[in-house]
Amino acid sequence: MSRVFRLIISCPDQVGIVATVAGFIADEGGSIVEANHHTDAMNKWFFMRHEILAGSLNDDLEGFKTKFAAIAERFQMDWQVTDSAQPKRIALFASKESHCLADLLYRWHEGDLPGEVACVIANHDDLRRMVEWYDIPFHHVPVTPDTKPEAFAKSQELVARYDADVIVLARYMQILPPQMCVDYAGKVINIHHSFLPSFVGAKPYHQAYERGVKLIGATCHYVTEELDAGPIIEQDVIRVSHSHSIDDMRRLGRDVEKTVLSRGLRYHLEDRVLIHGNKTVVFSA
Amino acid sequence: MSRVFRLIISCPDQVGIVATVAGFIADEGGSIVEANHHTDAMNKWFFMRHEILAGSLNDDLEGFKTKFAAIAERFQMDWQVTDSAQPKRIALFASKESHCLADLLYRWHEGDLPGEVACVIANHDDLRRMVEWYDIPFHHVPVTPDTKPEAFAKSQELVARYDADVIVLARYMQILPPQMCVDYAGKVINIHHSFLPSFVGAKPYHQAYERGVKLIGATCHYVTEELDAGPIIEQDVIRVSHSHSIDDMRRLGRDVEKTVLSRGLRYHLEDRVLIHGNKTVVFSA
Amino acid sequence: MSRVFRLIISCPDQVGIVATVAGFIADEGGSIVEANHHTDAMNKWFFMRHEILAGSLNDDLEGFKTKFAAIAERFQMDWQVTDSAQPKRIALFASKESHCLADLLYRWHEGDLPGEVACVIANHDDLRRMVEWYDIPFHHVPVTPDTKPEAFAKSQELVARYDADVIVLARYMQILPPQMCVDYAGKVINIHHSFLPSFVGAKPYHQAYERGVKLIGATCHYVTEELDAGPIIEQDVIRVSHSHSIDDMRRLGRDVEKTVLSRGLRYHLEDRVLIHGNKTVVFSA
Amino acid sequence: MSRVFRLIISCPDQVGIVATVAGFIADEGGSIVEANHHTDAMNKWFFMRHEILAGSLNDDLEGFKTKFAAIAERFQMDWQVTDSAQPKRIALFASKESHCLADLLYRWHEGDLPGEVACVIANHDDLRRMVEWYDIPFHHVPVTPDTKPEAFAKSQELVARYDADVIVLARYMQILPPQMCVDYAGKVINIHHSFLPSFVGAKPYHQAYERGVKLIGATCHYVTEELDAGPIIEQDVIRVSHSHSIDDMRRLGRDVEKTVLSRGLRYHLEDRVLIHGNKTVVFSA
Repeated sequence: MSRVFRLIISCPDQVGIVATVAGFIADEGGSIVEANHHTDAMNKWFFMRHEILAGSLNDDLEGFKTKFAAIAERFQMDWQVTDSAQPKRIALFASKESHCLADLLYRWHEGDLPGEVACVIANHDDLRRMVEWYDIPFHHVPVTPDTKPEAFAKSQELVARYDADVIVLARYMQILPPQMCVDYAGKVINIHHSFLPSFVGAKPYHQAYERGVKLIGATCHYVTEELDAGPIIEQDVIRVSHSHSIDDMRRLGRDVEKTVLSRGLRYHLEDRVLIHGNKTVVFSA
Repeated sequence: MSRVFRLIISCPDQVGIVATVAGFIADEGGSIVEANHHTDAMNKWFFMRHEILAGSLNDDLEGFKTKFAAIAERFQMDWQVTDSAQPKRIALFASKESHCLADLLYRWHEGDLPGEVACVIANHDDLRRMVEWYDIPFHHVPVTPDTKPEAFAKSQELVARYDADVIVLARYMQILPPQMCVDYAGKVINIHHSFLPSFVGAKPYHQAYERGVKLIGATCHYVTEELDAGPIIEQDVIRVSHSHSIDDMRRLGRDVEKTVLSRGLRYHLEDRVLIHGNKTVVFSA
Repeated sequence: MSRVFRLIISCPDQVGIVATVAGFIADEGGSIVEANHHTDAMNKWFFMRHEILAGSLNDDLEGFKTKFAAIAERFQMDWQVTDSAQPKRIALFASKESHCLADLLYRWHEGDLPGEVACVIANHDDLRRMVEWYDIPFHHVPVTPDTKPEAFAKSQELVARYDADVIVLARYMQILPPQMCVDYAGKVINIHHSFLPSFVGAKPYHQAYERGVKLIGATCHYVTEELDAGPIIEQDVIRVSHSHSIDDMRRLGRDVEKTVLSRGLRYHLEDRVLIHGNKTVVFSA
Repeated sequence: MSRVFRLIISCPDQVGIVATVAGFIADEGGSIVEANHHTDAMNKWFFMRHEILAGSLNDDLEGFKTKFAAIAERFQMDWQVTDSAQPKRIALFASKESHCLADLLYRWHEGDLPGEVACVIANHDDLRRMVEWYDIPFHHVPVTPDTKPEAFAKSQELVARYDADVIVLARYMQILPPQMCVDYAGKVINIHHSFLPSFVGAKPYHQAYERGVKLIGATCHYVTEELDAGPIIEQDVIRVSHSHSIDDMRRLGRDVEKTVLSRGLRYHLEDRVLIHGNKTVVFSA
């Protein structure tokens, strides 16, 4: 993959934004690899994402940013420019269940994840051997009702130490403290094992079995203070029938969970997800 | 299609049911076209459905039933035998939206629905011309807050007059009176335009848009007293994104709604759905 | 829906296209409703589609076109501007099978098809009553091995008389003459009842049954001289199993066929499909 | 999971098979966990699979088989009884690409694969470290045009030495010698990275890209002498668009390939696949 800069913008909609931005990129000599726009007509808000070949630009990243800042101010843009050569660093939070963790580690190892796995933090020690095979630091931070504040303080300290840009709850099974949800807003990604908003909370496969649904699913979303209610990045489902037990649902669901999480995380790592209110714009390829 | 008898059974599980039933069918000379079994291990309940070539049997329908009754009693079976030559009669309840109604009428007209459309009962007169092209009786029974009891009495009287076996709420948009739900238990099929249990109640596409889900769906279920909470027969979903407005969701959803309803209804008409508690066993082909 | 102009462009890729086009639109006061870009990196070709609010522009359609022509020439663009207030006119070609025809007529009737059904031309008279209910002219043009040239001359004359922009083969079951494929290149849409390139030619469900595939599908594509080999617009599949007969596959397949055809046709009618070589760029919403 | 015996039968269809078999099972005291039947009406052939609780039977496996043999002879049955306590042993054949191999090893390690991975045989040494982490014997058997006969003799010797019941070509990329296809008929499972019969042979993603299909897929099938033409066990697809390069297709396809292979293999390991001619009956749960 050639090195690209990603220019991500959201702002109030008005005539001339695209022309101004595209004119700026052209003046900089920028060769656009991919461009996506979205206008939210209801809320009169505009979203845009460009991938620009780094090698085609007259400026380096800092120069590009400095020049663009004037445009951003003019249109009251919420914006960022990221560099594909500086992949986001990921802190994986895990517990005992390995399927999501194993899947992400494997993808990273194969060069199939556009990010760096910085560390694994787990509240049980079970998955240490799997993680260490990949030469990824593994930290066992137990969480008990009594030690919860200390445990999360420790976890956040690790996230900071490893300079992680994003936290992935790979079936972590613990509820983050409200303040942590606020501090890391838009930076904590969870995989919930149901097709939200159905079956919020614990034991969604039990709930699905009881209700007799004919499809089960998984939801990848940003974590907010309200449990399982944050902006949804990606979802998918798989068909089940009366012949499937709760254990069958768990087995089938694992495949959906890991696929949905890896897709949602990929979108985040490539700066394809723009949060607006409690919803997302996802410029998937 | 050759004429078949359908033998539908559910009963407490025990050794010897299949042998007894299969032995009985073989003694009667019955050639089995399709057989399905399901054991609910959790509740120790057994479900079975056979399609038997009518022409292969020594007996007619009544004779077959009479002989089978002894077996049924022995195993405490909930059972029925139906005859594909006596298709179920359907009363379609509609309002203003035509997509589900038009789809079912078309399928019936093409011989693609294993049942008879007996009549259409609608609380608005808009769809009369479409229905009458098919030479199906159309009854306009307005429902207002004041006239609700009379309107539903009238509707039930029509259902009885047309000797309908099943009521299909093809986007009827009215809530049936509780007593009617009880009287027609397992005989009223609704299509709800969401992936239940998400977005129960009114305006599910609005709710889906607000929540920012990435898939929308539809649910075909039996109507019970509790709104949108009856046994689910069939569900399906379709992918949406940030680029879809509520109107787009309505348009995409219509295709899912009518497909799910026609599939669910087909299962019911072919006696493939066995209700147990608030769940279904669906022996789909 | 507000009236929009659709500006569709494809040309050799180079820096500055987007800036120039976006600058032009902004200078014209154009409010962009939707914008899509695609760069084919392998072939260094660029594709772009804009929807612009007609009411926001300084010029009318002709004025807009005249001014844009200079830009188009400079970048060697293949381009067009269409007006949503002038929907494309559709000639539907049918035979005896009604499912695709009935589906498109119904969608048109409900205002759900962004085009005008101008006429139906069929080589059998069976579907006349269905078509005439919609007050659409129905022409029975029989095709026999002997009369094929005259029949297609007649059909083309009708297409011209009704000023149709696009021909839809709604399970027409006849192979168009080569010259007609050339004359109407990019303007004849077919629905093939298999997941192309599998099962080219006749009786694809028989072929699928014989091969024992676990999914069957349908393909909406532009017609070219080579049978079933033209640019693909849309495809979809549905699951089947050993328990499905060829008749079951036909029944299940009909739903996929009509869905895929209506989706593909919608893309065409909204100028979302750009043909390049034997492939398509589809800017689906 | 409780220990079960699986009784698998196929034979010419006639009245009385089910009764006889079910009667036999009941006489043995057998508690049926799952039962599936299929009648191929076209070919007048009957297929049946039972799961019977081992603990409920009067006899052990050998006793059960001995008694059943008489029934089998009477109905000219092709039959087998397998014991879930004796899982099939798997020889995995691999090359350089790891995604299918890694997925199967992981599932086996988690107890999610109802079989035993006996060994890995690879024509490259690249995946040794991954395999050995699982304490699975890894054999590097290079295949060159000159050494092909010796290499396959060596591989078959290893299969025999490890007492493997089934060979899985996990993206092995080598064509087995015809005699080996015959010797292991119904015992070699391949994953082909296309939706067969489309894109037989090499580089299917290149072929798919060239053809411009809108869905790509994968096919799990038994290997026969004719390349990519054996009985299909399972297939699935994923949506692609003009925006996906061949590399994107490879990436997306890997997820489909491994899912389809693991599902197909699971069916085989649980004796759910009955081969008849060049097609399969798959009694999936």
